[in-house]
Amino acid sequence: MASGQFLDVCIVGFGAIGALYAFALHKSGQVRITAVCRSNYDALRDEGLDIDSDRFGTHSAWKPYRVVRTVEEAADRHYSYVICAFKCLPEIVTTPALLCPVLSRLKTSPSKEPTTFVLLQNGIGIEDDLLAELSNIDVPTVVLSGCCWVDTTAVDSGRKIVQHGNERLVLGYHQPPGGFKDMAEELSKRSLETLCSLLRSAEGNVEAAPDVDVARWRKVLWNASFSTLCTLTRCHVGDVLALETSRLALRDIMAEVLTVARASLPPSELREQVLADHVVDQIMEHENPRSVFRPSMLVDLDHGRPMEVEAIVGGVLRRGKAKGVATPKLDLVYAALAVVQSKLVKTR
Amino acid sequence: MASGQFLDVCIVGFGAIGALYAFALHKSGQVRITAVCRSNYDALRDEGLDIDSDRFGTHSAWKPYRVVRTVEEAADRHYSYVICAFKCLPEIVTTPALLCPVLSRLKTSPSKEPTTFVLLQNGIGIEDDLLAELSNIDVPTVVLSGCCWVDTTAVDSGRKIVQHGNERLVLGYHQPPGGFKDMAEELSKRSLETLCSLLRSAEGNVEAAPDVDVARWRKVLWNASFSTLCTLTRCHVGDVLALETSRLALRDIMAEVLTVARASLPPSELREQVLADHVVDQIMEHENPRSVFRPSMLVDLDHGRPMEVEAIVGGVLRRGKAKGVATPKLDLVYAALAVVQSKLVKTR
Repeated sequence: MASGQFLDVCIVGFGAIGALYAFALHKSGQVRITAVCRSNYDALRDEGLDIDSDRFGTHSAWKPYRVVRTVEEAADRHYSYVICAFKCLPEIVTTPALLCPVLSRLKTSPSKEPTTFVLLQNGIGIEDDLLAELSNIDVPTVVLSGCCWVDTTAVDSGRKIVQHGNERLVLGYHQPPGGFKDMAEELSKRSLETLCSLLRSAEGNVEAAPDVDVARWRKVLWNASFSTLCTLTRCHVGDVLALETSRLALRDIMAEVLTVARASLPPSELREQVLADHVVDQIMEHENPRSVFRPSMLVDLDHGRPMEVEAIVGGVLRRGKAKGVATPKLDLVYAALAVVQSKLVKTR
Repeated sequence: MASGQFLDVCIVGFGAIGALYAFALHKSGQVRITAVCRSNYDALRDEGLDIDSDRFGTHSAWKPYRVVRTVEEAADRHYSYVICAFKCLPEIVTTPALLCPVLSRLKTSPSKEPTTFVLLQNGIGIEDDLLAELSNIDVPTVVLSGCCWVDTTAVDSGRKIVQHGNERLVLGYHQPPGGFKDMAEELSKRSLETLCSLLRSAEGNVEAAPDVDVARWRKVLWNASFSTLCTLTRCHVGDVLALETSRLALRDIMAEVLTVARASLPPSELREQVLADHVVDQIMEHENPRSVFRPSMLVDLDHGRPMEVEAIVGGVLRRGKAKGVATPKLDLVYAALAVVQSKLVKTR
């Protein structure tokens, strides 16, 4: 184990998701957290973080091992895990550009211990640019990604994290495209197991996915339909479920996503099972018609912040285009959201 | 000519369009206007209307012959023309329901002089319910409809009408479905000619359309694409024109409208000419990329007022469905706008 008895873990993006899993890892007793914060740096350094979580308990004024403002500041040491919990906004900054100081260090001061990058972000193809960048670096690395199924919010300007109800994290590894192919799979499996076991020791409800791509497509089914329609209409989930025409639109969008998913993923029993047509029925039946939930994309718009349109919708469209799958409704959704997004980006 | 030397004309809906053409008819010197006002009744009765129009000139404190609050009040006499310039919102009130007192009078106190209904409203199929209702009434009536190509706005709570630049009104007659078929066409032509000549005598730029349906579809091409995308994105025309993806979406929507139009209208040289594919190019080239114009549908949303989604999008979809034409993008646009509309209707 590196750094004496502790694994060094860097969390980039200390919003609700980043902070929640940082705390879970800290709770394992085997990890030292370096938190890269932007808006909540002062609050976190001076007062620490309150946590009110159904899964991880109630805690007052928790301070991570280190709080820093930039990835550059954080890149003074080797990390076993670099957890990316920032919003995925490639039109503003790509993941490799954002992680540049950490990636440079891998080149100039390679460690014997591998570094694992963990992408806790929504969307399809969010790993592509990082994998491409890592294939140019001459040390073995691992890329994991995870889908968080959790209702968690940062309140009080990021001084407090609230998490209600269930929490579930599905984690898996990506196949690096570059060198080290022979050792990569073994390394990835080991790194995935370690991270799962750390989170489990803090009572996290974590699941190692046999195929993380299938899990990611399953999650984007909801985000590409519910999140986008809620955002375009500025309405909560219940409003979008209230009309037959919009329920049909949700179904039609999910059907398009499913078609792209099946065209993009290699055939497998898991794929047929997780991404079957009847999953759409299950999702529609599972949703509460009285829900007043506002998806994070809409919350971003409410606050004038850029939205993850590229990761969530653009990612599906790029895979669809590559496979020659028509996506008329998603194209329209993307076109409309891209206009909204372009104004949000301009007025940042 | 009825009522001595004057034709009685009732204008229902005294917003910018209603007031502008009411004034033009008044200017002809051959018409007595009864204006049915809602929000601007007090202002109009007490102070009259200021008009600042590039086409019809500048006038101060013009008062119509009569100003009334309701169609019921207006229905104390026979009208040669009943001009409907209210917003077409069939989910709130249908045109026959709104005109009920006038329609009842036709039944109980039929006049020798026919009544012509003139629909100055956007959308497809907006005449359907009125034609159906008139076919149950045992007196000859005429239904004209018109597409207004004019930039006109009511300001100062409806006390003033501003009209800038060009003005063009395309008017034509519909074929009544009920009795009087033999005399209906002749009557309709005469009524259309009279109205055109009245407006022309006030220097109105009015055009008698050989086929009003073709003209209406030509106009809805713009409204179903530009108006809806501007409304969904809450952006002006220039913003929607700024991205390649949204320009493509505008074109795709117009292509769907054209397909429905061609399937719905009988073949004719005019149809091929006015609704050819290259019309989409013409529209796209004609629009100004720096335009900050907000279509009336978006202005309605800005003010929390119900929008003409049913007339403009629903009308196209109903015709498309009747003809088995697929409209995937318009379906999605409709589904999203219907969610927004349903909240606007609820909170009226």
